[in-house]
Amino acid sequence: MNAKPILAIDAMGGDFGPGVIVPGAIQAARELKVKVLLVGDAPQVESELAKLSLGKVEYEIVPASEVVQMHEKPSDILRRKKDSSIQVACRLVKDGAADGVISAGHSGATVACGIFIIGRIPGVERPALAAFLPTEKNPLVVIDAGANVDCRPYHLFQFGLMGDAFARDIFGYPSPRVALLSIGEEEGKGNSQVKEAYELYKMAEHVNFIGNAEGRDIFSGDVDVIVCDGFVGNIIVKMSEGVAFSLMRMLKRELFSGFVTKFGTWLSKPAFKRFTNTVDYAEYGGAPLLGLQGICFVCHGKSNSRAMTNAVKIVATFVEKGTNERMRESIITNEELTRFSRAL
Amino acid sequence: MNAKPILAIDAMGGDFGPGVIVPGAIQAARELKVKVLLVGDAPQVESELAKLSLGKVEYEIVPASEVVQMHEKPSDILRRKKDSSIQVACRLVKDGAADGVISAGHSGATVACGIFIIGRIPGVERPALAAFLPTEKNPLVVIDAGANVDCRPYHLFQFGLMGDAFARDIFGYPSPRVALLSIGEEEGKGNSQVKEAYELYKMAEHVNFIGNAEGRDIFSGDVDVIVCDGFVGNIIVKMSEGVAFSLMRMLKRELFSGFVTKFGTWLSKPAFKRFTNTVDYAEYGGAPLLGLQGICFVCHGKSNSRAMTNAVKIVATFVEKGTNERMRESIITNEELTRFSRAL
Repeated sequence: MNAKPILAIDAMGGDFGPGVIVPGAIQAARELKVKVLLVGDAPQVESELAKLSLGKVEYEIVPASEVVQMHEKPSDILRRKKDSSIQVACRLVKDGAADGVISAGHSGATVACGIFIIGRIPGVERPALAAFLPTEKNPLVVIDAGANVDCRPYHLFQFGLMGDAFARDIFGYPSPRVALLSIGEEEGKGNSQVKEAYELYKMAEHVNFIGNAEGRDIFSGDVDVIVCDGFVGNIIVKMSEGVAFSLMRMLKRELFSGFVTKFGTWLSKPAFKRFTNTVDYAEYGGAPLLGLQGICFVCHGKSNSRAMTNAVKIVATFVEKGTNERMRESIITNEELTRFSRAL
Repeated sequence: MNAKPILAIDAMGGDFGPGVIVPGAIQAARELKVKVLLVGDAPQVESELAKLSLGKVEYEIVPASEVVQMHEKPSDILRRKKDSSIQVACRLVKDGAADGVISAGHSGATVACGIFIIGRIPGVERPALAAFLPTEKNPLVVIDAGANVDCRPYHLFQFGLMGDAFARDIFGYPSPRVALLSIGEEEGKGNSQVKEAYELYKMAEHVNFIGNAEGRDIFSGDVDVIVCDGFVGNIIVKMSEGVAFSLMRMLKRELFSGFVTKFGTWLSKPAFKRFTNTVDYAEYGGAPLLGLQGICFVCHGKSNSRAMTNAVKIVATFVEKGTNERMRESIITNEELTRFSRAL
C-alpha cells in the first residue's frame, strides 16, 4: 500500500483541456514524487508534453480515443463511451494499474464512472463527495457535496463515518468534530432524515459526533465535518464559492469610492491578496468521491495547474495513509446500525 | 384598506425585552406615522414608556399576563399560554383590531400563533417565511426561510407566488425574477420536489419564472425571489448571516498584520463601515410570515431599535399596498395547478 502512488489523470477533462491539465499533472508529479498516467488523445498529450521539461518525472501516456462532451448524460457516457478518457482512467484503478483518478471533466460522468467502474467499498451504501471549505480556523469537510440528491438517514450516517476518516488522514485532525447540518442545534430539530440520522450517530462508535450544526456554524471553524444530503451540500458549497467573491466586489465598490480610502486600500493590497488566496477554491481544487475501492477526485472545470497540484497532493496522501482501510473499518464497526436503519 | 396601519407589537419578545422593543416601536410609529399596540405586561411597558417622549405618537397598551420562555414548545404555547403577549397580539389581528403582528420573541411560537390564530389566506397550503438577503445588486427574497421543513412540490410553487407578490410591493420590482434553488441550472436538475415544482412554474400564470438558480447565484443579484423548502432556506439564510462576519474577521486578521496595511486599513475605515451596514441583517430585521389573513413579522431575537423600525416599515408597506389581496389573486389564478399537483 505504501509504495509510490500512481495516479490516473483524465488529460482531456476541464474547460481548458490538455493545455492546462498536462502541465499541472507533470508539475504535481515532480513536486510530490508520484507517478502520473496521462489518459487521453495521445498526439494531443504528446504535443503538450513536448513543451515541458520532463527530467526525472515519472509518467506514462495511456491512450483513450473518445472525449466526453459537457452536455452528455452520465448514464449515456457510461454505457456508450467505453473508450473515453474518464472510463479508461477508472478502469486503470479497477485493474490495479493506478491508485486513484483525477478529472476536471464532466463531474456527473466522473461520479458515475467512479461508482460503476471502480466500485464501492463493501458495506458503503452511497459514495459521497467531500468538499472543503475555508473557515475562520481550519478547513471544513462538507459531505455530501452533490453526489446523492435524495438521501436516507443511514446514508447521512455513513457520510459522517467517511468524512471522519478523511479529515483524520488528510487534515490530521486527531478527533474530527462531526455534526449534522440542520435548522437548530437541539436534538429533534431538522427534517425527518436528519432526526433519524441523529439517533444513529448517538449510538455510533469511534466518531466524535457533536450534534447538529446550523448555517451560521459553517464558517466559524468550530466543526470539522459537516454532514448533509447532496442537494443541500451542493448548494452551500457553491454558495460559499460565490459569496467570498461577491462580498469582495461589494467591499471593493466601497473601498474605491473616495481618494483617501482608495489610497488606504492600495497600502493594504498585500493583505487583500492573502485573504483572496484563503478563500479561493483553487486552494483545494475540487472534491474527492469517497467510498470507492480507490479514489476519484472531481476537480472544478476551471481548474488551473495549482488546483491540479493540490488535487494530486490530496489523492497521494489518501493513498499513502491508507484512508480507505480506515474508512472500511469504520463502516464495518457501525454496520449493525446501518442495517437496522435500513430495515425501518 | 388604505387607512393608517395599526400594528400589534409583542412588547415582551426578544433577547433584550421591553427595554429595547418599546422604544424601537415608538420610534418607528413616530417616523412612519403608524399606530402601534404594545402588547405585554402593562406595568413594565408603562415604565419603559415613561422614559420616552411620546408627543403625537399613536399607541395603546394591550395587557397580556403571560410571557413565553424560549425553551417552550410552540404547540404547548399555543395550547396553554392563551394570555401570552404573542397570542394576544395575534388575536388583535384575527379580531380586526390590528393589521399585523411584529415579534422578536420565540420564532416557532410566533409562526404557530400566526398560522393557527390569524389563519391562512383561503387557498394557501402553507404560510412561509420570506427572508431578505443583501446581494451585489438589489435585495433578494428567500422563501421559505424556515417555517416548513418537509415540503411538497405545490408548496414550493405557492411559495414563489407569495414571494413574487411580496417583492413587487415591498421592493417595487415590476416583474420579479423567480427561481427555484437547485443543484444545476438546467431543467431536470434537483431533488424530486424541485423537479416537479419546476413543471408547475412552467405552466403558471403571471409569474416571471426564470428556471433553476444555483448556490453561486444567491449573491450575484441576478435573481429576485429564490424558492426553496424551509430546511434549505433556514440553512442558507443563517449561513449568509454568518459568512459576512466570518469573512470580515478573516480579512481583518490579514489587514492588521503589518504596519503599512494597518495604516491603509485605518484610512479605508469609512468604506468598511458602509460595507458592514450593507451586509448587516438588522437592515431588514427579520422575516415576515406570508400567506396569513394579515401578516406576522418574525424578528431576530437580537433585534435592536433599528431592526424594529425596519420591521414596522415593511409591515406598514405590506398593509398599505394591500399585498395580501395581490397574493390571494395569484393563488386563485393558479389554483388548478396546485390542486392538480396535490392529487398526484
